[in-house]
Amino acid sequence: VVKALQGPAYNYRAMPRPEKALIAEIRRLAKSNKPSRLIPTGIGDDCAVLHIPPNHDSLVTTDFSLEGIHFHRDWHPPESVGHRCLTRGLSDIAAMGGQPVAAFLSLALPGDLPQSWVTRFMRGLLALANKYKVTLAGGDTAESPNGILADILVLGMVPKGHAILRSGARPGDRIYVTGTLGGSAAAIHELQARPNKKINPRDYPRHFHPEPRLELGRILGEKRLASAMIDLSDGLSTDLAHVCEESGVGAEIESTAIPRAKVGKPKYEVKLDVALHGGEDYELLFTAPRHKRIPTQIAGVPITQIGHIRRGRGILLMNEHSKGSKLEPQGWEHFRR
Amino acid sequence: VVKALQGPAYNYRAMPRPEKALIAEIRRLAKSNKPSRLIPTGIGDDCAVLHIPPNHDSLVTTDFSLEGIHFHRDWHPPESVGHRCLTRGLSDIAAMGGQPVAAFLSLALPGDLPQSWVTRFMRGLLALANKYKVTLAGGDTAESPNGILADILVLGMVPKGHAILRSGARPGDRIYVTGTLGGSAAAIHELQARPNKKINPRDYPRHFHPEPRLELGRILGEKRLASAMIDLSDGLSTDLAHVCEESGVGAEIESTAIPRAKVGKPKYEVKLDVALHGGEDYELLFTAPRHKRIPTQIAGVPITQIGHIRRGRGILLMNEHSKGSKLEPQGWEHFRR
Repeated sequence: VVKALQGPAYNYRAMPRPEKALIAEIRRLAKSNKPSRLIPTGIGDDCAVLHIPPNHDSLVTTDFSLEGIHFHRDWHPPESVGHRCLTRGLSDIAAMGGQPVAAFLSLALPGDLPQSWVTRFMRGLLALANKYKVTLAGGDTAESPNGILADILVLGMVPKGHAILRSGARPGDRIYVTGTLGGSAAAIHELQARPNKKINPRDYPRHFHPEPRLELGRILGEKRLASAMIDLSDGLSTDLAHVCEESGVGAEIESTAIPRAKVGKPKYEVKLDVALHGGEDYELLFTAPRHKRIPTQIAGVPITQIGHIRRGRGILLMNEHSKGSKLEPQGWEHFRR
Repeated sequence: VVKALQGPAYNYRAMPRPEKALIAEIRRLAKSNKPSRLIPTGIGDDCAVLHIPPNHDSLVTTDFSLEGIHFHRDWHPPESVGHRCLTRGLSDIAAMGGQPVAAFLSLALPGDLPQSWVTRFMRGLLALANKYKVTLAGGDTAESPNGILADILVLGMVPKGHAILRSGARPGDRIYVTGTLGGSAAAIHELQARPNKKINPRDYPRHFHPEPRLELGRILGEKRLASAMIDLSDGLSTDLAHVCEESGVGAEIESTAIPRAKVGKPKYEVKLDVALHGGEDYELLFTAPRHKRIPTQIAGVPITQIGHIRRGRGILLMNEHSKGSKLEPQGWEHFRR
């Protein structure tokens, strides 16, 4: 059942009473969301109907945001949880060079969750949806036996045959990353070290309000600059390994070239390890043939060359003395307490 | 991240060890799933890429299956949980007159869940997916802090403009249902009355292995027989009310015309109330203009006329003496203990 947030078909009767109030609130908030011309409004039907334009492929991605795994209620403001929930999906669309169209939110909530938490969560999510003209087109709700569970699905589109896959990297291609790395993991390290100390979200923007690199990704696709692309959700060492595996190649990166995030107050630069393995930065990693001129920034986001693709297998990390060591994927394991 | 079940891109590194074994098992099982020509195989990328044919609209539906809300581990065999999980989505596609294309499964599992449970769950889900040529094209996995959580997304298609909405019913239209009603709720009543007694799934097939009415729905759409349609997931009284609300009409149904399920061993006919309000039958309810000749069965499934649409608001239930009373939606509240 698609309980269309903008339609009148949310199923009130089949829900326990507190949940009805909740749905009413979600619908009220969703009215601030502008529907796209690709989706007839007020659908309120068994399915959402989407008009994907001809000569486009559809993109689909789905991501969990689970309390205790992806966020903590006492560490993350509800607006941040909502924002990050949607960013996870939008970032996957960006990594294909695509354009998001619609989001579907499945939300299971504990019976004793304050209404205000949901209101603030939806505000964070909808602000981001509106910014990128994504229609919140439906979803499902349920009472959770334990903890908050969100599952976000984003549907996007890309001109037919223009999707940038992970499998297109070729020996000799340059490797690039957008923005700076490790800024999100640094916040986690800080929170884990001092669980009772609140940190200011503004000092760690890439953790609390990561911006999906949609415009940059779309431009790379449109100008056919990238041969392969992935978003940095699990960490550079893991995500680059994915590109290498999918493309059947190896890679060599320079430790001194990795753009490390500056975070905190007072500002400090994250350690190399955090930039190499820290996840959830939602920057993009892409490869491009040697002859392609890659701008130093696109859509206001800096782009840094960090190495190149080579034959064979594995990732070689070159230190400042040009000595190489094997870089094992040590991707982000979602934090737990 | 779409962790494509058929691609090599499932993210092993970012998962705790037990989950890795689990994903390997899910992927092994998913190999029995035949990919559709609409989805390039071995995608393993940030998003699944889908080629929806021109002149078709996309359909999207998403449904939770939560332990303790939608199923109980000691009541429902894992195969049945997997089957019902996918049926929820396929039935929504059927209710639009559409054809399913791909499914995405997000699964959060407790750390101590036996591998065999997952294997059997996937077998139930994949058997149904294969039957209807639905590609399991991706999803997400996570460790659940408490209880099994599945979120299924089904993407389908329908010839442009042919989707059968809830909003098309007009005064004078006849109201029809497929199959028989109340068979699924009867199993719940039985289980709730005797929680420790196992019942034989074969005696309650519509509860444990409900078949989505895909072919019937598609034929109604193709021949443009139905003016409105919905699937009976919440119960006749609730779902008919949805059609009435969306269409801005009222309805009159005959209590003697409601086709009641015969279930159990020895077989008994369910009470009228169970047929009127019991949910999760996954039959279809549709309306058709008076002049349309509706066959007594389509695709082997019997079709019964139960009443007609009238001007105004609300649903009138006529008893065997042609006396009318107001039928309030008393839709299915998911069972709890």
